[in-house]
Amino acid sequence: MTIEICTVGGYNEVGKNMTAIRVDDEVILIDMGLHLDPYIQYTDSDEVCDMSASALTSIGAVPDIKLIDDWRKKVKAIIPTHAHLDHVGAVPYLEKKFNAPILCTPFTSEVLSAICTDEKIKLKNKVKVLNVNSIYKISDKITIEFVNATHSTPQTVLVAIHTPYGIVLYASDFKFDNHPVIGKKTDMAQLKKLGKKNVLCLLCDGTRAGQAMKTPSEQVAREMLKDVMLATSSEGKAVVVTTFSSHIARLKSIVEFGKKLNRKIIFLGRSLSKYAAAAENAGIIKFTDDVEMVKYGKHIRRKLKQIQKDPSKYLIVCTGHQGEQKAVLGKIVNGEFEFRFNKEDQIIFSCTVIPTPLNRANRDLLERNLRQHGVRIFKDLHASGHPSKEDCREIINLVKPKHIIPCHVGLAMATGLTDLALEMGYTMGEQVHLMQNGQRFRVLD
Amino acid sequence: MTIEICTVGGYNEVGKNMTAIRVDDEVILIDMGLHLDPYIQYTDSDEVCDMSASALTSIGAVPDIKLIDDWRKKVKAIIPTHAHLDHVGAVPYLEKKFNAPILCTPFTSEVLSAICTDEKIKLKNKVKVLNVNSIYKISDKITIEFVNATHSTPQTVLVAIHTPYGIVLYASDFKFDNHPVIGKKTDMAQLKKLGKKNVLCLLCDGTRAGQAMKTPSEQVAREMLKDVMLATSSEGKAVVVTTFSSHIARLKSIVEFGKKLNRKIIFLGRSLSKYAAAAENAGIIKFTDDVEMVKYGKHIRRKLKQIQKDPSKYLIVCTGHQGEQKAVLGKIVNGEFEFRFNKEDQIIFSCTVIPTPLNRANRDLLERNLRQHGVRIFKDLHASGHPSKEDCREIINLVKPKHIIPCHVGLAMATGLTDLALEMGYTMGEQVHLMQNGQRFRVLD
Amino acid sequence: MTIEICTVGGYNEVGKNMTAIRVDDEVILIDMGLHLDPYIQYTDSDEVCDMSASALTSIGAVPDIKLIDDWRKKVKAIIPTHAHLDHVGAVPYLEKKFNAPILCTPFTSEVLSAICTDEKIKLKNKVKVLNVNSIYKISDKITIEFVNATHSTPQTVLVAIHTPYGIVLYASDFKFDNHPVIGKKTDMAQLKKLGKKNVLCLLCDGTRAGQAMKTPSEQVAREMLKDVMLATSSEGKAVVVTTFSSHIARLKSIVEFGKKLNRKIIFLGRSLSKYAAAAENAGIIKFTDDVEMVKYGKHIRRKLKQIQKDPSKYLIVCTGHQGEQKAVLGKIVNGEFEFRFNKEDQIIFSCTVIPTPLNRANRDLLERNLRQHGVRIFKDLHASGHPSKEDCREIINLVKPKHIIPCHVGLAMATGLTDLALEMGYTMGEQVHLMQNGQRFRVLD
Amino acid sequence: MTIEICTVGGYNEVGKNMTAIRVDDEVILIDMGLHLDPYIQYTDSDEVCDMSASALTSIGAVPDIKLIDDWRKKVKAIIPTHAHLDHVGAVPYLEKKFNAPILCTPFTSEVLSAICTDEKIKLKNKVKVLNVNSIYKISDKITIEFVNATHSTPQTVLVAIHTPYGIVLYASDFKFDNHPVIGKKTDMAQLKKLGKKNVLCLLCDGTRAGQAMKTPSEQVAREMLKDVMLATSSEGKAVVVTTFSSHIARLKSIVEFGKKLNRKIIFLGRSLSKYAAAAENAGIIKFTDDVEMVKYGKHIRRKLKQIQKDPSKYLIVCTGHQGEQKAVLGKIVNGEFEFRFNKEDQIIFSCTVIPTPLNRANRDLLERNLRQHGVRIFKDLHASGHPSKEDCREIINLVKPKHIIPCHVGLAMATGLTDLALEMGYTMGEQVHLMQNGQRFRVLD
Repeated sequence: MTIEICTVGGYNEVGKNMTAIRVDDEVILIDMGLHLDPYIQYTDSDEVCDMSASALTSIGAVPDIKLIDDWRKKVKAIIPTHAHLDHVGAVPYLEKKFNAPILCTPFTSEVLSAICTDEKIKLKNKVKVLNVNSIYKISDKITIEFVNATHSTPQTVLVAIHTPYGIVLYASDFKFDNHPVIGKKTDMAQLKKLGKKNVLCLLCDGTRAGQAMKTPSEQVAREMLKDVMLATSSEGKAVVVTTFSSHIARLKSIVEFGKKLNRKIIFLGRSLSKYAAAAENAGIIKFTDDVEMVKYGKHIRRKLKQIQKDPSKYLIVCTGHQGEQKAVLGKIVNGEFEFRFNKEDQIIFSCTVIPTPLNRANRDLLERNLRQHGVRIFKDLHASGHPSKEDCREIINLVKPKHIIPCHVGLAMATGLTDLALEMGYTMGEQVHLMQNGQRFRVLD
Repeated sequence: MTIEICTVGGYNEVGKNMTAIRVDDEVILIDMGLHLDPYIQYTDSDEVCDMSASALTSIGAVPDIKLIDDWRKKVKAIIPTHAHLDHVGAVPYLEKKFNAPILCTPFTSEVLSAICTDEKIKLKNKVKVLNVNSIYKISDKITIEFVNATHSTPQTVLVAIHTPYGIVLYASDFKFDNHPVIGKKTDMAQLKKLGKKNVLCLLCDGTRAGQAMKTPSEQVAREMLKDVMLATSSEGKAVVVTTFSSHIARLKSIVEFGKKLNRKIIFLGRSLSKYAAAAENAGIIKFTDDVEMVKYGKHIRRKLKQIQKDPSKYLIVCTGHQGEQKAVLGKIVNGEFEFRFNKEDQIIFSCTVIPTPLNRANRDLLERNLRQHGVRIFKDLHASGHPSKEDCREIINLVKPKHIIPCHVGLAMATGLTDLALEMGYTMGEQVHLMQNGQRFRVLD
Repeated sequence: MTIEICTVGGYNEVGKNMTAIRVDDEVILIDMGLHLDPYIQYTDSDEVCDMSASALTSIGAVPDIKLIDDWRKKVKAIIPTHAHLDHVGAVPYLEKKFNAPILCTPFTSEVLSAICTDEKIKLKNKVKVLNVNSIYKISDKITIEFVNATHSTPQTVLVAIHTPYGIVLYASDFKFDNHPVIGKKTDMAQLKKLGKKNVLCLLCDGTRAGQAMKTPSEQVAREMLKDVMLATSSEGKAVVVTTFSSHIARLKSIVEFGKKLNRKIIFLGRSLSKYAAAAENAGIIKFTDDVEMVKYGKHIRRKLKQIQKDPSKYLIVCTGHQGEQKAVLGKIVNGEFEFRFNKEDQIIFSCTVIPTPLNRANRDLLERNLRQHGVRIFKDLHASGHPSKEDCREIINLVKPKHIIPCHVGLAMATGLTDLALEMGYTMGEQVHLMQNGQRFRVLD
Repeated sequence: MTIEICTVGGYNEVGKNMTAIRVDDEVILIDMGLHLDPYIQYTDSDEVCDMSASALTSIGAVPDIKLIDDWRKKVKAIIPTHAHLDHVGAVPYLEKKFNAPILCTPFTSEVLSAICTDEKIKLKNKVKVLNVNSIYKISDKITIEFVNATHSTPQTVLVAIHTPYGIVLYASDFKFDNHPVIGKKTDMAQLKKLGKKNVLCLLCDGTRAGQAMKTPSEQVAREMLKDVMLATSSEGKAVVVTTFSSHIARLKSIVEFGKKLNRKIIFLGRSLSKYAAAAENAGIIKFTDDVEMVKYGKHIRRKLKQIQKDPSKYLIVCTGHQGEQKAVLGKIVNGEFEFRFNKEDQIIFSCTVIPTPLNRANRDLLERNLRQHGVRIFKDLHASGHPSKEDCREIINLVKPKHIIPCHVGLAMATGLTDLALEMGYTMGEQVHLMQNGQRFRVLD
């Protein structure tokens, strides 16, 4: 009668998330993510390359599965909770080491399969597609429940692992959005139900738990975007929007406002096409009626040349929001295409700068360059997809866990959620556990 | 044929705004504000006291009118542009030095008169109430035009001074809000018309010109507020909202959501009553049907004692958003009333911390105290009332001024607007002028 | 055969340090400090007042000894490690609850006795004065060893608790200064010797462990001070230096440079006199030959009036380095004395701003006021007394502890020392323990 | 009878300094610097490349001399004030456009000639070498005076341009160091003498004028360095120091301490050899007796392989203090040499991070990598070479200029020196002039 959790990855850093949960002799793996930061030193591209699993491990780009070597044969399921690369991106490289089905929602499955196609990797294990509120029996002892959650990419789920001894709830990457632009609200009723059973341990997203607020709804980002796109005069000017490629709800808003502007909407860049297609395949939204997708360098070059003739007819949506030098916006600004910005063209960053020094340097360079052309820059039209302090309090109140483990953070950031838990009466070290990659915690002995 | 501008106050600091514009032998005074910061050292109250004009001048709390002593007899009008204390607050203390009517919108007039009542001061000069889009002839040479503007208090105006030689446009404290909760949008059509005439000089609000964005609409603050108030469970808990007393649109939203919560709405604090009454008198909104106003200490004490019996029936709206120790919220937290916060009561700060070290210290103290009671704090549910960089660009493009003077900022902050102007092709020192309090600039010689 | 540590105070905040160490049936209390921050809300003075122990506990100003109520009768010694108020300041209020001698170095003893005189408190327990490298047998099982350490006040010690089962080393508030201005270097040889025995647990000062450096020597502060005092022309000007009253080495340097300037040196303020007298009584330094001490308000007033006649003859050393409004410098600046600063008078802050919002606000106010008088301000002539990351690594390497507990920090700051320990191969939760006030850790069971 | 100043470069940014001073029909050019920031985007190397002058101009890497096209034939002298690249680095590319001697001190001349050798450029104009306190007659109307100044590279001078109408004093890049490690103190007596004549205009280094202090002496950096190098145990470990290659005084200290450690001292990297040789040629210091210089990649590779066998015998001094990926330290860390760091090897950064986002990103990457190897990092062992607020006040008091122009800063940073000047009684716009690149100011008409 044992439940043991090994925090494999994403506990020393934001990235390469992976958590293993052992229930007696069976193990469930949740998330298998890439850590893009160290990876980026070895490649100029934002696309995943053909490095081997062991090479990726050695540079710290994927979770180190040697940490659970003794559990390897016990693994019964691999569950990427959503389509972000820091949760699903390492699956193609690591799943071969295990004999277990991959369980995920349709959108996540589509993105996974697109990555595999891109990287020319064939998965060894079967993908089992489940809906956002599914229940799936893994074995006599383990039943998996998906709980629908709002986040910055569609069909994100929280995962409840039901066992005879109680429940472990994995709740990384979610928000309580009451006005989601796509999909339903986070299923609070179901969380409350779980809370009435026996939640032994909650792994909770600590990314923003230091912020004394409720994370604003996607509606707020949409309002700001609408205001800038529809109410700022852009007659005769180029308008470029850049955002996270996987943020389908945001793209939906952008496309709607683009149509109101009577501009032809073009998505430029490989990852935009990839996620848009995944959303279409998963039946979430059909972009192709309204949007022209341009995926590869050569076609992008040709399209930009054409747009240059009359930029005011187009709405360009492109990759490169973090200032990545090899993404479409970075290349435009570096003069790699026959497209030049003119005075008072508009660049809309529907994102925040993910606060790493490298992103800051890239964005600084990009923006300085844009300002030299007199371009109008609109920044930070964004709402986060992660729970703030008051959202974390909400989920803790709903599910009433015995133990709490902050996830999706390194040590320094984990103190935010810890402070909240202590404020709520939990005890440091006994009920709130600050874990490092590779550590194990016996929930039940 | 001379136009000369003397930047009397608000050019070395954010506060005590005052600008004098001389057209040959006639002078117009725009704004006459208090600087609360130095003032606050001398009093524990946030209310204006009975210091004399010269005492207030000596501590730097009001504009130094000795700087325009030679123009004193030439003054033909005093024009507070809106009801904020840093624009209208010094009128009761300084207007006596001049022989000129006070021109302002109804709400500003009501607030001015309420201050006078409170301070037991009688104005020497007549107040001439004008609507937000009025034109008023001062003399043969000078005609004043009010241009309606959105801001964080109602009936704010930009002021165009029409002269035979051209126009001077004073545009401090405004935003381009396309979805104002109260009043109409800033009159861009009229600004464009002015731009087709001859705008010699634009005095432009530089407060946020360093921010590469468009200031979000009040609608955004309203959405965030709605989300927190209506979608966070507050059953059985006290709910307290605090915001700027003069922000009538915000108060309107708060009252609407309070009604949806089926809670009895109470405004606690002198300045809330004052501004609410002014808004009612000016015909803007009628709070008294929905709200109980409690103004003075003794009544506040009694009311809080009553609320304590069942806080979940009430929505408390009170003063003290910056953590001021003598405002209602500060006093509650310091235990000066028979009212105690309980675990998971909610405090909503619908404001930002105005970034002075004193405010930061006060808020820090307040919030630490609240956290010790396990109170839920929701911060920063706010949208600024000042133009960001892209709004400043908009107004410059609309009115095409020959000269630009950043106002509502000290020197360091003025570089934001200066950078924008230089980016737009203006020349430093020749067309963009960084002015200090007491300096004069001859627009036309 | 048990060693258990209760982290009573100073683990949720920087302040009110207290740690209890139980060895079977005997308990040693190390440090008993005041937390000045919450205290300051209740009094305008920087002096300790006549509140009762329970009142001080209820506002969080002293460690909560109820947390070790079950150990109360087992206490065998109370050991304040040095003379700072956050280590010794609560002794007068709390020692009565225990029956145990107070062990400390001569300077600490002198300061403790001065506080008692000031507060009119008589200690119940005996004070046993030990030298900085003493060994003292408490009982059959416990021997206390003082290890001399450099810090920002004289005669600071690290405390080794020798037991039959191994050693617990308490190392809060120290630095490895190779060029101390007063006293000897931290006794690294002795630490190394301890490391060869069996150090079970190190409680280590984590204040600056996030800084990747070695804390600079006091020599560095002295050089900067010398440069400003002796090489900046101050002819005909007032020169004021303010620093920590307990920083005897710094005061020594100031006095030396003051003598070189041929100025009459005056110490203004109660706490300066108090610490100077303590240093003199402890035989550390004799200030009275070179310095005139002026302690009380009335005399300060008279002395300042006299100095005003020819400020250039004096070097004023006074309290108020953090901008405290009731300290001497604050009162001068607020005009409470007949002393005015003139243009280009010099104010030297031989300290950093202790980074709380309140200090920042106070200093901001003070400095703005000084700038208005055209005073020359020299800031940050200081070197910290706490170990930086590389000093912490040094002590860990020297004593090779089995367990590490970061002390002198709240949770968020504790992650710096934790990161270092993890980098050095320690394991989170098993060997490195993040403790909160009131928690207990069994070193040995 | 005209004196006109054109601020050609270094007034919109920190970098590519150049100022032209016209006295009637003759023009003096002071400084001709590279701006490394934009340049670095176009090359991976920190060495100057073979781009043409016009290409360098178009990317903003050198001052835009078209701004003074009308003055081109009037130029009588080109005066790089010291050996930093942002002052002398553009000389090889731009001097050909003028017919005028290049006047500079011996060290600057040596560095200039080394750059030319490296870049295979031959200067068209003669270099006239002058000592640090020289006077040189240019024409009947213009006499140039060098005033010795302390800075972070040897033989830096302030330049006084004596004319029949008064003096213009160019004072960029200096500090008042009373304990310089190399060379003499800044010649304050001479500055005072100038002040008694007629200083019409002071161009003053504004880099640190916002800091309320006196810049600490190089002695302070030396003390910190000594403490880390000599008093931290490094037995058996590699010790690496990295600093500015042009900082000869710092290198002198490093070499002295290296000798005390009985380690063989190796300088690795091209620019270290270059500046060391220049210092030797200029007769300032002889490194070659004590230091082995290794300049090129192949030799560096071989040497590091040799050092790896027993790192504890060597002191490595290398390039790469800002984390530049192509400098020696960056390459070591990226594994490009057969040299690996071991646990507790020491890396000493005797510098600050020059605060650009790119440097921050590079250093962050470098340090994270080093931490993963358990290397001990010692940061910020540095003292600035630029005047702080109180040093700026000193020079203004000494030379009593009629006009002040902040230099070596962009607009935002220039407000620090402006604030000081206003505090001292100067008038904005009339006596203090915030200039942009390409603007002209008539000192005398």
